[in-house]
Amino acid sequence: MSAALHPHTGLPVVAMVGGGQLARMTHQAAVALGQSLRVLAANPQESAALVAADVRYGDHRDLGDLRVLADGATVVTFDHEHVPTEHLRTLVEEGTRVAPGPEALVHAQDKLVLRRALAEAGEPQPAWAEVRSAADVEGFADAHGWPVVLKTPRGGYDGKGVFVVGDAGAAAELLERHGTLLAEQRVAMVRELSAQVARSPFGQVAVWPVVETVQRDGVCAEVYAPAPGLSDELATAAQELAVRIADRLGVAGMLAVELFQTADGVLVNELAMRPHNSGHWSIEGARTSQFEQHLRAVLDYPLGSTEMVAPVVVMANVLGGAAAQEGWSGPALDERIHHLMAHWPDVKLHWYGKTQRPGRKLGHVTALGADLAEVRARALAAARYLADGVVDAAFAFAHDPEH
Amino acid sequence: MSAALHPHTGLPVVAMVGGGQLARMTHQAAVALGQSLRVLAANPQESAALVAADVRYGDHRDLGDLRVLADGATVVTFDHEHVPTEHLRTLVEEGTRVAPGPEALVHAQDKLVLRRALAEAGEPQPAWAEVRSAADVEGFADAHGWPVVLKTPRGGYDGKGVFVVGDAGAAAELLERHGTLLAEQRVAMVRELSAQVARSPFGQVAVWPVVETVQRDGVCAEVYAPAPGLSDELATAAQELAVRIADRLGVAGMLAVELFQTADGVLVNELAMRPHNSGHWSIEGARTSQFEQHLRAVLDYPLGSTEMVAPVVVMANVLGGAAAQEGWSGPALDERIHHLMAHWPDVKLHWYGKTQRPGRKLGHVTALGADLAEVRARALAAARYLADGVVDAAFAFAHDPEH
Repeated sequence: MSAALHPHTGLPVVAMVGGGQLARMTHQAAVALGQSLRVLAANPQESAALVAADVRYGDHRDLGDLRVLADGATVVTFDHEHVPTEHLRTLVEEGTRVAPGPEALVHAQDKLVLRRALAEAGEPQPAWAEVRSAADVEGFADAHGWPVVLKTPRGGYDGKGVFVVGDAGAAAELLERHGTLLAEQRVAMVRELSAQVARSPFGQVAVWPVVETVQRDGVCAEVYAPAPGLSDELATAAQELAVRIADRLGVAGMLAVELFQTADGVLVNELAMRPHNSGHWSIEGARTSQFEQHLRAVLDYPLGSTEMVAPVVVMANVLGGAAAQEGWSGPALDERIHHLMAHWPDVKLHWYGKTQRPGRKLGHVTALGADLAEVRARALAAARYLADGVVDAAFAFAHDPEH
Repeated sequence: MSAALHPHTGLPVVAMVGGGQLARMTHQAAVALGQSLRVLAANPQESAALVAADVRYGDHRDLGDLRVLADGATVVTFDHEHVPTEHLRTLVEEGTRVAPGPEALVHAQDKLVLRRALAEAGEPQPAWAEVRSAADVEGFADAHGWPVVLKTPRGGYDGKGVFVVGDAGAAAELLERHGTLLAEQRVAMVRELSAQVARSPFGQVAVWPVVETVQRDGVCAEVYAPAPGLSDELATAAQELAVRIADRLGVAGMLAVELFQTADGVLVNELAMRPHNSGHWSIEGARTSQFEQHLRAVLDYPLGSTEMVAPVVVMANVLGGAAAQEGWSGPALDERIHHLMAHWPDVKLHWYGKTQRPGRKLGHVTALGADLAEVRARALAAARYLADGVVDAAFAFAHDPEH
């Protein structure tokens, strides 16, 4: 089957399942390439539906809705991992190009599948086991110690579906509620890293510098590019690991390999096969952003340069804070953006257009420069101001990013 | 009247008259700021209509259509200068915020009005006169020599409405066809420059480095940022001139002051009060692009940093060439983009989604680096390949940008 192109422009139509901020930012990249992203959204208030010209409404778990999305599209891709694998297999059988394909994507959907694949490949990861009973967990703890990390194999994100348990009783309760779980050793880690790679169906790969990610309450809060103080040797090892995984799993599109850095090296935490929060810095910070690169990769276009445009780039997420709470009486969003622009004329804002709720990812800011502490202070203060309506210099320096 | 905000996002709704590439690229900037540009387009195949979520269809010369566009919008702005001034005055009287306002915009719409205003302000410009008869033109030529440049006061762009005449007979013919014309001395110029400034209603201004623009057949072909070899003194003078004009005319939004550089300094050629081809380089080349800055300025937000992100940035337009001609049998557009990406992984593409026709502005490419000749060679070769389907290294070096 030859690829479908837009009847007016003669250029590809990439269809993305999901209407969140990742689709929104992918649309921006598509516009530059002469394309218009087609989005499957649940409702007109979703981030991407607010800005994209070509929106289909439906449910990502409904095969019929997925078929409508795919009709006339060059390729189908994703802004999240929640599409049932069997639907994707059906689409592929019907002749639809899906990138990443279902056999690759399942490794980002199911943590047990991922653990088995990494074990087979001999890649570094925390000790793990599939557990179905409290006795299984106790056996695992005998070998690797308490506490044990229990994870639901599917459906978790941003810390959801991850539990740290200190005894067999707590484990039993979770198993009763969730059935089979993945048990993992709680790793003594130095910090978390992310290695992003894009891979095209042709097999071309492109890696960005390895970044440090800082989580708060299980949610990505900050990203430092490149990871400060990371040795060239370990950075290269992490990049090579990401490339090997992308190749072995046959990824098409963006792959983020989330890593634990330990005293001995790196261990794979989990994968995302789509643009990822750890790569938002690349919009302003690299010649080619992860969003443009994802489009290039799923379309089997040659990949773009991943060179950084500044020595240090810091991305800070804006999570709904004080200003997202009921009864907030401080400056409204539009006014806060006004103040942000006045105070930080070189901080770049990305606002997703969502309803503001505490803890929700509402936007992010990016700062560029040469000195990590200075760049980070700017990004954090700006993000904090948007979230909470206060400028708190102490907050910006509470965490020392130099390890 | 308090400003209208989007009912879901609580953020501004900027309404832009015109659905061309300037609106398309402004939409990209709007997406980052949490907004969705509202566009008045003539048809669904227009550049911006292909990618924007909020499109109204209509005619920019129809007051009713303009009212529909303005309804519920925070501010109305423009991607071209062709809206009748009286309609804008009516909108303002009805309480609509229009930026730039009609009394400023008329200086970008009517070249005679501009010449009078600059004369009053004592700003440098070519010798000029309003001419209604062949005798008027002969009188002008007696003082300033042949040939004389004759311009239609309104409606010209990209070299249209500009005529160089060598005698009174040719002038008489044009006057019969066009009525009153603007006569200008043909200036012995070194090159053309553009000084861009953004100004907010509050009065804040931000200037970018002065750039050199290269025209071919009256159409912008290349832009070098910063203008190579321009003295600091002359660069500052050009920036100050642009700021003075923006202030005096009460511009809100982007202003491009197109300049002739002569042996004695600079002379004002014409103005554009909107994002302008001479500022496309700023998307990748500056911390804040002209498109984001235009939104900030018309919304009276504080302006962003105009710092460059690389020492040298070159923008090359892609005008419809051999590949846009009937019967073209070389690689199709999608294939040419494929090749472009393979050959120049760090050249950034902007494709407007238009029907390809010879001479039409179809897109542009931007290259960044440290050495002008090298950066320019990359940008030109990439643009040429898209336009004509051939790589011609000789072409890239035919014009020496170092003056």
